[in-house]
Amino acid sequence: MTQRWLYKFNDLEEVPQAKEDDWDGVRGLLGGKGANLADMAALGIPVPHGFTITTEACNAYSELGQFPDGLWDEVLAAMAAIEKSTGKTFGGSENPLLVSVRSGAKFSMPGMMDTVLNVGLNDDVAAAMIELTGDAHFVFDSYRRLIQMFGTVVRGIDSEPFEGALRRARAAAGVANDSELSADVIKELVTDFKGMVAVHSRKEFPTDPMEQLRHSVEAVFKSWNSKRAQDYRAASKIPDTLGTAVNVMAMVFGNSGEDSGTGVAMSRDGKTGEPALEGDYLMNAQGEDVVAGNRPTRPIEELAGEMPGPAEEFAAISKRLETHYRDMQDMEFTIEDGRLWLLQTRTGKRTAQAAVRIAVDMVNEGLISKEEAVRRVTPEQVDFFLHPQFSAEARSQSQPIAHGLNVSPGAAVGVVAFDPDLAERWGKAGRDVVLVRPETKPDDVHGMLAAAGILTSSGGRTSHAALVARQFGKPAVTGATEIEIDLTARNLTAGSIVIEEGDFISIDGTTGEVFAGQVPTVSPDLDNEWLTTLLGWADEFRTLGVRANVDDPEDAARARRYGASGVGLCRTEHMFFEPSRLPIFRHVITAETLGEQRDAIDALLPLQRDDFAGLFRAMDGLPVIIRLLDPPLHEFLPGWEALHRTATDLQLQLAKAENLDALETILADLNETRSMLARVTALHEANPMLGLRGVRLGIKMPDITRMQARAVFEAAVQVIEEGGDPRPEIMVPLVSHVNELQRQRQLIEEVAEAVMEESGQRVEYLIGTMIEVPRAALTADAIAEFADFISFGTNDLTQTTYAISRDDAEEAFLLDYLANGILTANPFATIDIDGVGRLMQIALEGARHRSPDIESGVCGEHGGDPASIALCHELGLDYVSCSAFRIPVARLAAAQAALRAKDAAGKAG
Amino acid sequence: MTQRWLYKFNDLEEVPQAKEDDWDGVRGLLGGKGANLADMAALGIPVPHGFTITTEACNAYSELGQFPDGLWDEVLAAMAAIEKSTGKTFGGSENPLLVSVRSGAKFSMPGMMDTVLNVGLNDDVAAAMIELTGDAHFVFDSYRRLIQMFGTVVRGIDSEPFEGALRRARAAAGVANDSELSADVIKELVTDFKGMVAVHSRKEFPTDPMEQLRHSVEAVFKSWNSKRAQDYRAASKIPDTLGTAVNVMAMVFGNSGEDSGTGVAMSRDGKTGEPALEGDYLMNAQGEDVVAGNRPTRPIEELAGEMPGPAEEFAAISKRLETHYRDMQDMEFTIEDGRLWLLQTRTGKRTAQAAVRIAVDMVNEGLISKEEAVRRVTPEQVDFFLHPQFSAEARSQSQPIAHGLNVSPGAAVGVVAFDPDLAERWGKAGRDVVLVRPETKPDDVHGMLAAAGILTSSGGRTSHAALVARQFGKPAVTGATEIEIDLTARNLTAGSIVIEEGDFISIDGTTGEVFAGQVPTVSPDLDNEWLTTLLGWADEFRTLGVRANVDDPEDAARARRYGASGVGLCRTEHMFFEPSRLPIFRHVITAETLGEQRDAIDALLPLQRDDFAGLFRAMDGLPVIIRLLDPPLHEFLPGWEALHRTATDLQLQLAKAENLDALETILADLNETRSMLARVTALHEANPMLGLRGVRLGIKMPDITRMQARAVFEAAVQVIEEGGDPRPEIMVPLVSHVNELQRQRQLIEEVAEAVMEESGQRVEYLIGTMIEVPRAALTADAIAEFADFISFGTNDLTQTTYAISRDDAEEAFLLDYLANGILTANPFATIDIDGVGRLMQIALEGARHRSPDIESGVCGEHGGDPASIALCHELGLDYVSCSAFRIPVARLAAAQAALRAKDAAGKAG
Repeated sequence: MTQRWLYKFNDLEEVPQAKEDDWDGVRGLLGGKGANLADMAALGIPVPHGFTITTEACNAYSELGQFPDGLWDEVLAAMAAIEKSTGKTFGGSENPLLVSVRSGAKFSMPGMMDTVLNVGLNDDVAAAMIELTGDAHFVFDSYRRLIQMFGTVVRGIDSEPFEGALRRARAAAGVANDSELSADVIKELVTDFKGMVAVHSRKEFPTDPMEQLRHSVEAVFKSWNSKRAQDYRAASKIPDTLGTAVNVMAMVFGNSGEDSGTGVAMSRDGKTGEPALEGDYLMNAQGEDVVAGNRPTRPIEELAGEMPGPAEEFAAISKRLETHYRDMQDMEFTIEDGRLWLLQTRTGKRTAQAAVRIAVDMVNEGLISKEEAVRRVTPEQVDFFLHPQFSAEARSQSQPIAHGLNVSPGAAVGVVAFDPDLAERWGKAGRDVVLVRPETKPDDVHGMLAAAGILTSSGGRTSHAALVARQFGKPAVTGATEIEIDLTARNLTAGSIVIEEGDFISIDGTTGEVFAGQVPTVSPDLDNEWLTTLLGWADEFRTLGVRANVDDPEDAARARRYGASGVGLCRTEHMFFEPSRLPIFRHVITAETLGEQRDAIDALLPLQRDDFAGLFRAMDGLPVIIRLLDPPLHEFLPGWEALHRTATDLQLQLAKAENLDALETILADLNETRSMLARVTALHEANPMLGLRGVRLGIKMPDITRMQARAVFEAAVQVIEEGGDPRPEIMVPLVSHVNELQRQRQLIEEVAEAVMEESGQRVEYLIGTMIEVPRAALTADAIAEFADFISFGTNDLTQTTYAISRDDAEEAFLLDYLANGILTANPFATIDIDGVGRLMQIALEGARHRSPDIESGVCGEHGGDPASIALCHELGLDYVSCSAFRIPVARLAAAQAALRAKDAAGKAG
Repeated sequence: MTQRWLYKFNDLEEVPQAKEDDWDGVRGLLGGKGANLADMAALGIPVPHGFTITTEACNAYSELGQFPDGLWDEVLAAMAAIEKSTGKTFGGSENPLLVSVRSGAKFSMPGMMDTVLNVGLNDDVAAAMIELTGDAHFVFDSYRRLIQMFGTVVRGIDSEPFEGALRRARAAAGVANDSELSADVIKELVTDFKGMVAVHSRKEFPTDPMEQLRHSVEAVFKSWNSKRAQDYRAASKIPDTLGTAVNVMAMVFGNSGEDSGTGVAMSRDGKTGEPALEGDYLMNAQGEDVVAGNRPTRPIEELAGEMPGPAEEFAAISKRLETHYRDMQDMEFTIEDGRLWLLQTRTGKRTAQAAVRIAVDMVNEGLISKEEAVRRVTPEQVDFFLHPQFSAEARSQSQPIAHGLNVSPGAAVGVVAFDPDLAERWGKAGRDVVLVRPETKPDDVHGMLAAAGILTSSGGRTSHAALVARQFGKPAVTGATEIEIDLTARNLTAGSIVIEEGDFISIDGTTGEVFAGQVPTVSPDLDNEWLTTLLGWADEFRTLGVRANVDDPEDAARARRYGASGVGLCRTEHMFFEPSRLPIFRHVITAETLGEQRDAIDALLPLQRDDFAGLFRAMDGLPVIIRLLDPPLHEFLPGWEALHRTATDLQLQLAKAENLDALETILADLNETRSMLARVTALHEANPMLGLRGVRLGIKMPDITRMQARAVFEAAVQVIEEGGDPRPEIMVPLVSHVNELQRQRQLIEEVAEAVMEESGQRVEYLIGTMIEVPRAALTADAIAEFADFISFGTNDLTQTTYAISRDDAEEAFLLDYLANGILTANPFATIDIDGVGRLMQIALEGARHRSPDIESGVCGEHGGDPASIALCHELGLDYVSCSAFRIPVARLAAAQAALRAKDAAGKAG
């Protein structure tokens, strides 16, 4: 059997892949656009006659440098068939047939490849068409476009000569748009354009329609291997071997009279997800008129009043396509002489809210399964619900002053600051600031962190500003080129609007819009009924638990509402940083005698007990993992530098003191400062992250461990006596050797026994450890002997696995690494699979070898990152733990990870 | 066949294990002492008659709580046989037989188990013996000792009552030693002692010799399970199941007349290793007289003049035993009435020098193989040759003023400092200091590091001072209790000698001796002919290469003399720290413009080129690994604290400035200080070890990499043109991601091509990387694609694997961890097998997967540590690299590791 190079739109059942129900294969052969046209034809939906030249033909062309044997014969036969079906003639002088020639690859590559419309026109055909339609303007304009497209696309002529001629014509006629030019003027342009093609390409514009067609198909084939298409594919990871299909379609005309028209519509509302058609149309018009906006379009709802038949038919087709594709459709249609034609259908784009609502509605309508709904919504779309947004009303009343790239989602409102130092100063003073810069650099990061949002006039999606903003969850718009920043005058100009430093500005990182003044925002809408339903379904599919990193009862209660099944990490030191407690904890550190120290520690006991009791109540019946004191002690004391400056100041004051009283006061202050300075100096460590912290503190100062354990168990007893069900789990941080854990475990067990004996209450509890040091991962087998559970502290584990300080590595070099491609992802945002992930796997193998059912989880910042959650699922962890506001994202990501794993298992099996 | 419980000394051929040539089994059954006695008997060497009760009998006793069936009957039969052979009678009144009852386990447990001598004495036997010997003093003293030993060992009475009675008797007689008491006094003590036994144990001292024997044997059995013996075994990892044998031996008397005598001797000189008998003897004396030193002993050489027969026989036996055991022997002998008896032989203890010489001599004598010689000398013994020692002449002329524990080898001479701050101050001022403290604590470490040696008046082998001293290779003597330290008067007193702070003192950490003043030292004696020979043999067995960590040509030349086969690590930054270069490198860091910076970098080029050329010449034909710049930049600048203090001082001076000139000068200084301060502040990092250093610097400042690469290649070209054979290997530090290496490699290759093109010379070179970050180990497969070699930086790898800062972790908590047993070894001294070792294995598997023959080595401090070297051998590394003075140790350790691996393979096969 010889190879077949094309299929007519109604040939779907002859496509070998379709016979095998290999719909991915159909798209591979016919391209996305061609496959959908064939689908529609098979469903009996009216599409203009036409055919699709396969991607295989494109690949054969690329290889041979010419049409493969048989292709042109098939094209001729297919054209003859169209003529027969339509009763029109290609190049005919009575009822002429025009066709469009469009590329259509398997994956959408918007704007990357070529199209030639109105193929089939020449002087004779034009005359025949004017005869037929009575619309010389339309016909000459179509003819003009064909010649221009043929010249640029097929012959590779620069567009400037054509555009220059149009410019001159508009100037002569005193109009702004080409469509306002008279038919006579356009007719002259047709002549001019033909001349230009002949001059620039040293070859006449072909009057033979078949020659036009042949060259157009060839041009589309060639455009697959254009440089810009290759670059795009390299960036999007689309294989070069796919090739593009070519769709040749009979043209229909929505401007052929009062019972003609054209429009675009989505099968549901792409903004809200409401289940009703949403779109625009124009009577007696061509598709480009709808887009160009030179005539006011009308909403699709009104079509029924004007043309009830086609309107009803279109609504039915919309439903039919949704049922067929089981997704919201974005359709183009034309009505020619009262007859409806569908020109294209594809999956519609939608906002996050719409995506969630459509997915849930479609399940309720029986169109898709719950599983499919959960797969369709992205974690980023759920994330959208968690960032402040401009309210719909506010948005409808505000006009953007500029547009840029929507690089980091969410809305931000604040006063403009043009330099990072000022942003930081105002930020620290409690003002909401938007940092506005031509572009940002590593030196600006402190200002970016202090700002509510970031706006730059240049820079792309991977610019420094974009990377940093996403990294830190700051709303940002970059590359807003309409804005001019004057750093000398300290203002920005957008069109006629001038905004001074200190004036308010509003940016929408979700859309890329910039507004003057303060646009009201609305808070995260987590009570959205569709989101709640969707996340409930996600919970049915996920096997990974989702816990919360919280430090106080209010946070815990919120996390529970958001769906947390326990606390994965309570950082007890956060309780010590509270202003009322810090002096007591400082006393623990600066105490001169052990007795003094013990008294200070004892004073913390009732405070910690209340903290823990609150957590147990909020998480009644659910596990609460409490981590023992972790950070280096110096974090609780004033900084060395500040103390030193104070001492210097006091010394200078001393030199100038005017009387004895003043002298004594200064001296007393100086002594106190020097004493604190001595303590801070003694605690100074060269690399505090690798120093005296975590379990090392617990071993050096066992009274702190005893106090914290006692607070946990006394709080548990208290809650039990109230009738509650506390589930404390104590976690030992920074273990690198099993002996550290063994000793702390013994200490904790002693306290537990003592409290239980004193109270007569039995407390069920677990003792476990963080795996956050490479050695702990490597020796997890031994460690598991003394751990009821392990929890990966992936932040610290990343820090030591990479030897990159969390504290300040970003500024020092990590952002440079991301910008110049040494790293493709920030390992503090997404778990590094090759390094940290491998250590996690080694740890789990070891721990499970000793203790097959050991509970395991992740409690680092990675717990809220979808890619990291997928890894956690693959590793078979029991849960991830993240901050309260990431819990919904984590629930969905966990479900999707489980579904992907099911797919992979299905393929493997 | 019923079980046999004892073997006479001449029954060796009946021992089942001996029949199977299972000599380890013989020692297991008869204990070390018993096995050697049986050996000697079998060799025809005269040993007194006797027998060994087996360890199996001991174990049976431990299990049953009583003698197993048949044992006592065998003892009775064996005693009868001794009586028959000796013609003496146990408990007889004419020619009485006395026996000793001694423990003797498979492994020596000095002082842990019990012994009863002179068994068989009672009033009648004593009278008979006085009749026979005419020496009432000797007989009553023997009798007194039996009763005392029986009382304490068998009956468990405290020794105090007996010692009190002796004290009172000495006081009454006005003598200092028991041996000076008259026979009459001792006779009274015998009566008193019998009374004490009766009173304290509520049972009479048994007059029946057989009863004495039975209880003595039982007591030795019991002593196997005494608490101290159990503790000792636990600490020495000797299994509890071994049991002890019991040796019962007829006593012979060296004090029975002028043709009797006794002595101890080694078959070679235990100090120098000279192949001649070395020992002492006394005529008409008992063994304890030789030890007690109340009569001057005579050197063994003189025995020939006095008793030529026994002397000749002893010399022959000594040779015979050496030949039999193939090692130097430590023997006890007694001559009774002209007849020589060997009472014991065992392997002799020896100094490091002697160990080396004996091993080499024995190979030359054909006694042992080269392989055995290499196995016998320990790395610690080779290490001895590398520390300064007091010269032999100096030692012979100096009298120690005190003795302590020899906890860290080597001699140190310096002025006494009683506090660490002073030690540090004097040390920094270039003075040799010995830090003298009652004991040390973590706060003292800076002073210990600054000192040449450490001396404490209290503290044991595992005291803080001992651990730290060994850790840092500082000679140290601890627990020198004869010294009294007066911290108020700032002096120390030893006997009548007073040494003031600032006076000289000398300590010998190898022997534990303390001397007043300056004892002259001699330098490492690496030219020792025997050591040279031994290390040459070691080289024949080792497969692991040994390279040197050196930074300049002189060091490199020395390392080559010591046996280095190349440079494993040249730290280029050490060249920048040189006083003449530091200002230039500081200029690189503080440059305001890129151009200024490039000029400063260029100024370094000729200096580095000369450095490298020198190294290539010194290591002509051998590989030289040059590591690119590694440390964080702030290390090259003054400290923040010092700068801040300077600024404060200048500010205060400014306030008091008296004229305009002074003001201007101060102001200029202040501005400069502030400018440096600003740069230091900008470079400040929270955790510099995890910050901008290593390859990260090379990527941020590629001009430095280019300059260093150019210096390497230009130096290589220069040396080639001189006719040399340079083998440069460039090493990229701190790689955590393959992309870092890839980019630096490209940079280096570009420079290499450029230099080769400019010069027209071809330079062979390699580019590799350190594996010193866990992620590099975990992803070594990918990294190996761009690395010609890998070198483990085990210091940094330990730092990140454990999350322990190298800079100051020791003081912060690591020493505590070692002291309280959380860690059993300092991971910065010996590679942690479970964590770091496992990462190394993972890295090697990965790298070899990509590149099977990739060169690998270790260049951390661990490269000179024998246990770590053994691990490196097991991992199949190509070489270890260590500081020049550790190279001989590494050569031996590498050979021993290879031999152990051969043994293990032999066993497995």
